[in-house]
Amino acid sequence: MRMYDIIAKKRDGGTLTEAEIDFAIRGYVAGEIPDYQMSALLMAIYLRGMTDAETAVLTDVMARSGDMVDLSSIPGVKVDKHSTGGVGDKTTLVIVPIVAACGLSVAKMSGRGLGHTGGTIDKMEAVPGTRTTLTQQEFFAQVNRIGLAVIGQSGQIAVADKKLYALRDVTATVGCIPLIASSIMSKKLAAGSDAILLDVTMGTGAFMQNLEDAIELARLMVSIGTAHGRKVAALITDMDKPLGHNIGNAMEVAESMAVLQGRGPADLTEVCLQLAANMLVLGGKGSLTACRAMAERALSDGTAFAKCCQMFEAQGGDISVLQDPDRFPRAKYCYDLVVREGAGYITANDVEKIGNASVLLGAGRLKKEDPIDFAAGIELHKKLGDAVKPGDVLCTFYASDPALFAAAEEMYRSGLVISDRRPAEPPLVYARVTADGVERF
Amino acid sequence: MRMYDIIAKKRDGGTLTEAEIDFAIRGYVAGEIPDYQMSALLMAIYLRGMTDAETAVLTDVMARSGDMVDLSSIPGVKVDKHSTGGVGDKTTLVIVPIVAACGLSVAKMSGRGLGHTGGTIDKMEAVPGTRTTLTQQEFFAQVNRIGLAVIGQSGQIAVADKKLYALRDVTATVGCIPLIASSIMSKKLAAGSDAILLDVTMGTGAFMQNLEDAIELARLMVSIGTAHGRKVAALITDMDKPLGHNIGNAMEVAESMAVLQGRGPADLTEVCLQLAANMLVLGGKGSLTACRAMAERALSDGTAFAKCCQMFEAQGGDISVLQDPDRFPRAKYCYDLVVREGAGYITANDVEKIGNASVLLGAGRLKKEDPIDFAAGIELHKKLGDAVKPGDVLCTFYASDPALFAAAEEMYRSGLVISDRRPAEPPLVYARVTADGVERF
Repeated sequence: MRMYDIIAKKRDGGTLTEAEIDFAIRGYVAGEIPDYQMSALLMAIYLRGMTDAETAVLTDVMARSGDMVDLSSIPGVKVDKHSTGGVGDKTTLVIVPIVAACGLSVAKMSGRGLGHTGGTIDKMEAVPGTRTTLTQQEFFAQVNRIGLAVIGQSGQIAVADKKLYALRDVTATVGCIPLIASSIMSKKLAAGSDAILLDVTMGTGAFMQNLEDAIELARLMVSIGTAHGRKVAALITDMDKPLGHNIGNAMEVAESMAVLQGRGPADLTEVCLQLAANMLVLGGKGSLTACRAMAERALSDGTAFAKCCQMFEAQGGDISVLQDPDRFPRAKYCYDLVVREGAGYITANDVEKIGNASVLLGAGRLKKEDPIDFAAGIELHKKLGDAVKPGDVLCTFYASDPALFAAAEEMYRSGLVISDRRPAEPPLVYARVTADGVERF
Repeated sequence: MRMYDIIAKKRDGGTLTEAEIDFAIRGYVAGEIPDYQMSALLMAIYLRGMTDAETAVLTDVMARSGDMVDLSSIPGVKVDKHSTGGVGDKTTLVIVPIVAACGLSVAKMSGRGLGHTGGTIDKMEAVPGTRTTLTQQEFFAQVNRIGLAVIGQSGQIAVADKKLYALRDVTATVGCIPLIASSIMSKKLAAGSDAILLDVTMGTGAFMQNLEDAIELARLMVSIGTAHGRKVAALITDMDKPLGHNIGNAMEVAESMAVLQGRGPADLTEVCLQLAANMLVLGGKGSLTACRAMAERALSDGTAFAKCCQMFEAQGGDISVLQDPDRFPRAKYCYDLVVREGAGYITANDVEKIGNASVLLGAGRLKKEDPIDFAAGIELHKKLGDAVKPGDVLCTFYASDPALFAAAEEMYRSGLVISDRRPAEPPLVYARVTADGVERF
């Protein structure tokens, strides 16, 4: 078998066999197939596509390229969730405590932020003292004792995906549905949970820019997971606006705690309840209606918030900041962005640009090795569709250096349009995709 | 400017600007752009195509990436020719002497054989003593003195093409018309002749498998050359059968000399006359009819053959083998392939496989560094369309080791079909493409 022939077959629109995909991926991980051949194959896949069967095989080969986590020492159903990424997307910190409070086990590995999107692990580390690296023994023991643990992804999970993703990132082959689906699902399959809820974000802050692509990605991931014996469902959620008001690591933790204490923003609270309810359904806790009620109860009776504090405490975090977010270290400088245009509506407010502005303030990273300023971020006062008039404060920037404000403001305003056209209000959740089909809302 | 954005633009079907193409090619030659990004771009070009304007810019940038030969010290019109490759394609050794005998100057650089196709330089080296590497001074002086010289291509010609071709060769991005056209024309423009005749081969032994692709390649190359102020024309010639009967270096020299002496095979003689006549037209020697008569005269009066001997003599070759090909070193072993099937016609006789069989006998090379056995080769007794009966000799293999015959026979027979269906006789020349348009025959 020759990599050349595999590239030529895909280039001409052919369907790769299991043996061919296995040969290409294993050879690439082993260093026997050079980057330049793999990037030619990736571009051919980008432009020619892959069948569901090819994508399932690719996912499987990538999942098996590293450690396959065995969660069988944790009794009961283990549930996981994954978001395809967003700005101000702090749902994990709310949902995981809710479902754990409702009796499911969550042994979750999460990622760090990169580019305009944030990551749960960075947010957790904003809580002083929190350890996000546990030994496997500590990880399992914590889940067995209190029902939940969230740690950073081990470098040994889906190593082929790691190497492939780095290559896709520099060869303009990231935004391809079969490659996105196999990348995500290879890590989720290797992470070992029985049930996986996928949050497929859609809008200006997400990979997916339209509903049909988002549904296709969700459908493909659900099909791959189901074929591997996992219970999988997906919600297509809106990312034309950030969720809630806060962007930035400590600020997002504070907002998550507000939701867990029943006083969070309505949009964020609603999306978290829908995601949590669907996780509970996948975990066998009953009908969607019953699970929704269960999730609401976990918020209102304080058990979810207590579970969250328990998790941070178990991982060494200073939970006084969870109970009183004013105790978080504050950014040294703040700066209000005001409306300079005439009165009207926020007709456009590009979420990727909002995310990039927060990175420029120090809240995120452009390269993996960049440090993060946990206190930096953006507080949104007006969002897409809101009526505004001259002098209104659109948002407040927080940073440790006032020299950062100018570039962040330019970035923020480059995605902003204020006009007399009020955009249609996007729904919070567009659709639900399960093994049984697609339900559009 | 970032290579990433250039890849993404072509991936999405965009048209690259001159600055973008220049950035990508120069950066790649300088080693600043890695192979894996260039191979992603090449695959995107393969699948998305390039406009004529993009291809012209790419050609120009590649031509200027190395030495641009200045032939102005040679007076008069300098003509060049290029074949897109074939099996048993020995036309250069006939045409160059014809046009030189008719008064045009030919300062030509030729290639070596690779894979199933042969190369003029290897054939010339089959004549003992022939030097195919001359200094620039020797090269120019020879052309000024006797009107012709054929030498190996300098490594400093179109260095970008050299590096790109090596990458295309291992990433399944060779067979793409804009990339083929720019590769050929960059070398031809850099080689400095005023007029260029292109022999675009078509059939089972060629890159181009159908007439429309061949015409498109020819049209594109003529357009690029014309835009650069050169006189360019192309003939689309048949490569569903090898030309003449002989494949293999010394054997092809012998057959070329037979044509120059007026006793060569009809098909080879006719194609050489048409190619030579078109070169003479490009060189300003008159109408096609007049030039054809001139070429015929150069054969019949012996001036073309004398010119050929003069060239080999000037380059140190032992011209006694040209006058009497029996003086060529003979292959130690020969082997007749006989018809094992029933009576019928040769319905298929894949030329690429004939070429590969000759490589297996030692007449060509799979890798650039492989040695060549000048005496090895194949003599064809029956060709595509001929009537055959059991026991007829199809061809004779020549090699220095009888152990080579089995694999070569298997290769040869794998492309052979004998049945009662007589295939249509292909024309020798399908079409003529000039700056004025396409003339189909």
